[in-house]
Amino acid sequence: MSETFTFRILATDGQARRGEIAMPRGLVRTPAFMPVGTGGTVKAMYMDQVRALGSDIILGNTYHLMLRPGAERVARLGGLHEFARWPHPILTDSGGFQVMSLAALRKIREEGVTFRSHIDGQVHEMSPERSIEIQGLLDADIQMQLDECVRLPAPRREVERAMELSLRWAERCKAAFGRQPGKAMFGIVQGGVDLDLRARSAAALSAMDLKGYAVGGLAVGEPQAVMLEVLEATCPALPADRPRYLMGVGTPDDILHSVARGIDMFDCVMPTRAGRHGLAYTRRGKVNLKNARHADDPRPLDETSDCPAARDYSRAYLHHLVKSGEALGAMLLTWNNLAYYQRLMADIRAAIEAGRFEERAAQMREEWARGDLPPV
Amino acid sequence: MSETFTFRILATDGQARRGEIAMPRGLVRTPAFMPVGTGGTVKAMYMDQVRALGSDIILGNTYHLMLRPGAERVARLGGLHEFARWPHPILTDSGGFQVMSLAALRKIREEGVTFRSHIDGQVHEMSPERSIEIQGLLDADIQMQLDECVRLPAPRREVERAMELSLRWAERCKAAFGRQPGKAMFGIVQGGVDLDLRARSAAALSAMDLKGYAVGGLAVGEPQAVMLEVLEATCPALPADRPRYLMGVGTPDDILHSVARGIDMFDCVMPTRAGRHGLAYTRRGKVNLKNARHADDPRPLDETSDCPAARDYSRAYLHHLVKSGEALGAMLLTWNNLAYYQRLMADIRAAIEAGRFEERAAQMREEWARGDLPPV
Ligand SMILES: [Zn+2]
Ligand SMILES: [Zn+2]
Repeated sequence: MSETFTFRILATDGQARRGEIAMPRGLVRTPAFMPVGTGGTVKAMYMDQVRALGSDIILGNTYHLMLRPGAERVARLGGLHEFARWPHPILTDSGGFQVMSLAALRKIREEGVTFRSHIDGQVHEMSPERSIEIQGLLDADIQMQLDECVRLPAPRREVERAMELSLRWAERCKAAFGRQPGKAMFGIVQGGVDLDLRARSAAALSAMDLKGYAVGGLAVGEPQAVMLEVLEATCPALPADRPRYLMGVGTPDDILHSVARGIDMFDCVMPTRAGRHGLAYTRRGKVNLKNARHADDPRPLDETSDCPAARDYSRAYLHHLVKSGEALGAMLLTWNNLAYYQRLMADIRAAIEAGRFEERAAQMREEWARGDLPPV
Repeated sequence: MSETFTFRILATDGQARRGEIAMPRGLVRTPAFMPVGTGGTVKAMYMDQVRALGSDIILGNTYHLMLRPGAERVARLGGLHEFARWPHPILTDSGGFQVMSLAALRKIREEGVTFRSHIDGQVHEMSPERSIEIQGLLDADIQMQLDECVRLPAPRREVERAMELSLRWAERCKAAFGRQPGKAMFGIVQGGVDLDLRARSAAALSAMDLKGYAVGGLAVGEPQAVMLEVLEATCPALPADRPRYLMGVGTPDDILHSVARGIDMFDCVMPTRAGRHGLAYTRRGKVNLKNARHADDPRPLDETSDCPAARDYSRAYLHHLVKSGEALGAMLLTWNNLAYYQRLMADIRAAIEAGRFEERAAQMREEWARGDLPPV
């Protein structure tokens, strides 16, 4: 295990990068997908399963964890790794995005943001320094700067104001984080869909010499082409030797396109959330298990998968579980979906190493486009 | 594997019996606890886990399965074992009890019962013959006669009428079941809390020479002492060489007292249902994880357990999961509870073999009575 936080690129293919982040708690093979463990649990999964699927790192949500069970409590209990029984790397977000999307009565000032908890209505204060303090109490290996993510569309001056505030908060987070050789604090590029603002944000953050960079404020409803355009303007403006993390993205197709533009890390609730809503990701595209066509289908989701959830259970049984609202339905589909996502990432990594990334991506898209098995 | 359904008693200790039921799909070590797999799933558990806890047999609910996904559909899909991925013995109830407790507009006639589904309001007909037909479509290894279970308290003549109807239905179920050497159809003793009616029911069923006998209509709210009195009057009236199954029972203490009176098989939703409501069964009694006393407690439920759910997760984490309504809370507590119940049954079986059943039962009660760990 590495005593310091390091990133090295093992292979490239076009703009796509195959890399490795090393840190005391373990290695992260990139491009990496981080399952979302909002409140200290990847919903409906045992951590052993999450690990066995090839997850090197998971994401924890600072907003949720600060409200319940509380950051100081997690620290007393030995930190988030011990609390949630995940001894491998953890990245925490800053809490900012959820404050904007979940909390009530948000007030943003230069100093920070005040808000009411969506759980009990209590008023909380979150400054850049407090965000880093909380992420330290959680003992996160990768911590994110507090940023302001405006809801789009918004006037340019509003996007610019938030981007510039985020830059000042990045400086304060960097100072608050200080020197922690085994960990990293990432800055977050903001600027909406304005390429000029994005470039300014990326340049200013690059000058801060951070250990990693995220692209925030995307995949919030804009067309995929717009998101990719922002990535094309942003990635080249970031230091080539630091990991790049596209926050909250996305579909398998989003991931392929983003890797092609130089992104190294992803997180998204899609595979876990879809799993709780009867939707399965497969190499043949998305399958809706609620659909009556599956009621008599003895075939598994994917007989070639090495995930038991995909390989061993009939669609008829999965359909039955989903229609009956059984917990096992969510357990199996979440398992299937995370297995699919991690299989996708492994395929991407192997393809970059082999110098065949675009070829493999085209194969995957072709298989998705052919669609699901014909009905029995 | 046995080609026929057989029961043998390996040891006795007082009235307590240590036995073994053999059938083509496997052995059932008795006294046995059957986890309840209502709709083809033991809620919030993978079947592999259920098996690994030492479950030799599970219970399926005919009422639920006939409504969804439907018995004919399960048969087309290869039977319940294949559908639910449980290749070991399965007992199905007759559907009668759930018709009485869940369905609307029930009408009981000599011929059978008509009712409306609680799911979609459709009218269904259930006769003794249809119940056995459905259980055959499900391919259950042990099938139960259709009976009428009256809600207590009820006038004696009403209890008597239902008991006698149940006897006639037992004859019809026996005829419908026919000769199936690898399977069994059990009769159900009825008669409420009237010892005379119970004795008449047991005698009449015994004369039918069935492969096993159940005691029904108990644990429906009567005091434990009344239930035990009924068992004391009923068990001696049943053939000693056939398994005896106490339906829907019960607490760990109910199980100890019932084993002492000659019961061999149990099923109950308590461990699984409690697990979904934040309650843990442990050797120190029942623990309510919702209680704030656990919020900062780094200790596991039971450090001596060999179940990971009991041994590896802090009470603080379990408390957090339960308070947050996380699926993993139900998954871990159900796992813990079924592990506790199967550990209890293994202890009971070993104690009978050693001729120390009452001594071991007294130890367990003493440990429950000492209560949970003092707060941290
Ligand atoms: Zn595309
Ligand atoms: Zn007692």
